[in-house]
Amino acid sequence: MTYQLHYWPTIQGRGEFVRLALEAAGADYVDVARLPESKGGGESALGDRLDDPDIVRPSFAPPFLIDGDIVVGQTAAILLYLGPRLGLAGVGESDGLWTHQLQLTIADVVAEAHDTHHPISTGAYYEDQRDAAVQRARAFREERIPKFLNWFERVLRRNPAGSLHLVGDVLTYADLSLFQLVEGLRYAFPKAAARALAATPAVEKLHDNVKRRQRVHDYLQSPRRIAFNEDGIFRRYAELDA
Amino acid sequence: MTYQLHYWPTIQGRGEFVRLALEAAGADYVDVARLPESKGGGESALGDRLDDPDIVRPSFAPPFLIDGDIVVGQTAAILLYLGPRLGLAGVGESDGLWTHQLQLTIADVVAEAHDTHHPISTGAYYEDQRDAAVQRARAFREERIPKFLNWFERVLRRNPAGSLHLVGDVLTYADLSLFQLVEGLRYAFPKAAARALAATPAVEKLHDNVKRRQRVHDYLQSPRRIAFNEDGIFRRYAELDA
Repeated sequence: MTYQLHYWPTIQGRGEFVRLALEAAGADYVDVARLPESKGGGESALGDRLDDPDIVRPSFAPPFLIDGDIVVGQTAAILLYLGPRLGLAGVGESDGLWTHQLQLTIADVVAEAHDTHHPISTGAYYEDQRDAAVQRARAFREERIPKFLNWFERVLRRNPAGSLHLVGDVLTYADLSLFQLVEGLRYAFPKAAARALAATPAVEKLHDNVKRRQRVHDYLQSPRRIAFNEDGIFRRYAELDA
Repeated sequence: MTYQLHYWPTIQGRGEFVRLALEAAGADYVDVARLPESKGGGESALGDRLDDPDIVRPSFAPPFLIDGDIVVGQTAAILLYLGPRLGLAGVGESDGLWTHQLQLTIADVVAEAHDTHHPISTGAYYEDQRDAAVQRARAFREERIPKFLNWFERVLRRNPAGSLHLVGDVLTYADLSLFQLVEGLRYAFPKAAARALAATPAVEKLHDNVKRRQRVHDYLQSPRRIAFNEDGIFRRYAELDA
C-alpha cells in the first residue's frame, strides 16, 4: 500500500518530519500536493481535501497521512502511527512511548521556533510584528535553544546503549526529527545554533550521522528535498540571530 | 499499582489533563508534589526528581508519571500511556490514534493560550511583556479560539456515533481535555469564550455533560481540584479579554 502524505508543497515545515521518516525507511509514498494539478496536486486541492465534508475524522491542519481507510493528522500522531510500521520506534511499548515523548518535545521547540517570527499572530505579516519578533527571538536564542539542546545531549549521554541514538541502539523517528531540528536551527539562527551545538557534541554527532545515512543522503540531494525558505517554520532573518 | 503523578502542586496547568483522566477513571494515584515535604512533596522535591541523574529517560519538564519501572513525560504521551489502561481511549488502534490526534490539537490551543500572557519569554514577567500580550491575546480571541472550537464542533457533528462524544459513544481523555479547555478559556477569556461557545453548542454540551459525571463532579468539588490562578496556563487579566 502506498502512503499518501498531504502537506504544503513548497515548504519543509512540519511535513518534513514525516517525509524524513518515509524516506529513511525507503517507504512507498506519494507527496500528493507536489503532484501536478492534473494529478490531484497543488495547494487548492490540499485545501479542498482538508475541508472535505465527507471526512468523518477531519484534521485540523496539514500534514495528514492517508493509509487505506486510516486518515491521521498531527505530525507526532502520524509518526506514532508510522513508527512501528517503518521500524523507526525502537523495540516494544516502552521504547515506542519514549520515542514519542522525544518527538513531542521536538514539536514544542519547533512551535517556539515558528513563534520567533510570528510572536503576535500567524495571520499577520512578519514585518508587522518584527519588534516583538526581535525580542522573542532573543529569548529563544539565549534561553530556549540551549535548554532544549542540553536536554537532548543529556538524553544521549544517559542512553545505556550508547550516545549514538536517542532510543536504544537503532534509528528512530526521534533521531530523524532531531537531525531536522538541528538543520532548521542552523538555517534560521546560524550564530546561536553554532554556539549551542558547540556545547552539545553528542547532538551534533547524531545530526552528522543521520545526514550520512545512505537513504537520507540520497533524499537530501534529490529534488524531493525542498530548500529552506522564508515561508516555512525556520526562517532566516538577520535581525533575529546574534 | 498506584500511579505517581509529578506536577507543580499549586496550579492546574498541563498536569490537570492527567489529573482529570485519573479522577474520571477512579484510578489509584498520588499527586506526589502535593504531599507534605516530610512525605516527599513540595516543589523542591519535584525539581530534584526532574534533575535526578539516575533517571535514564529524564523528562524535559513536569508533568511526568511513574508507574513501576515506567517513567513518562509530556502530557499527551502520559495520556497515550494511560488511555487504554483507564478505558479512556475508545476501541482499538484507530480510536486510540484519533483520541491522541484530538489531544495533540488541544495541546496546541493550550500552548497558544499560555503565550497570550507570555508572548515574548516564559522567563520574563507578564508586566514586562504586557503590550505584546494585549496584541497576541486579541489575535487569539478573534482568530484562534473560534477556529479551534469550530473544528471541535465539526468533529462532534461528524461523529457517526453521535455528537455527545468526540470518539465513538464512550468517554475518552479527549472529552475530558476538551472539558478542561473550555473551563480554562472561560476563566481566562470570559467574554471571548462566551461568544465562541454560543456558536459551538455541541462543544458546550460536551463540557456540561462531562462536568455532570459523578466522578468528575466529585473531583471538582473536592480540595484536590486547585482553583484557577494567575500562575497557571489560563490566567485572567482584564486587559486580555474583550
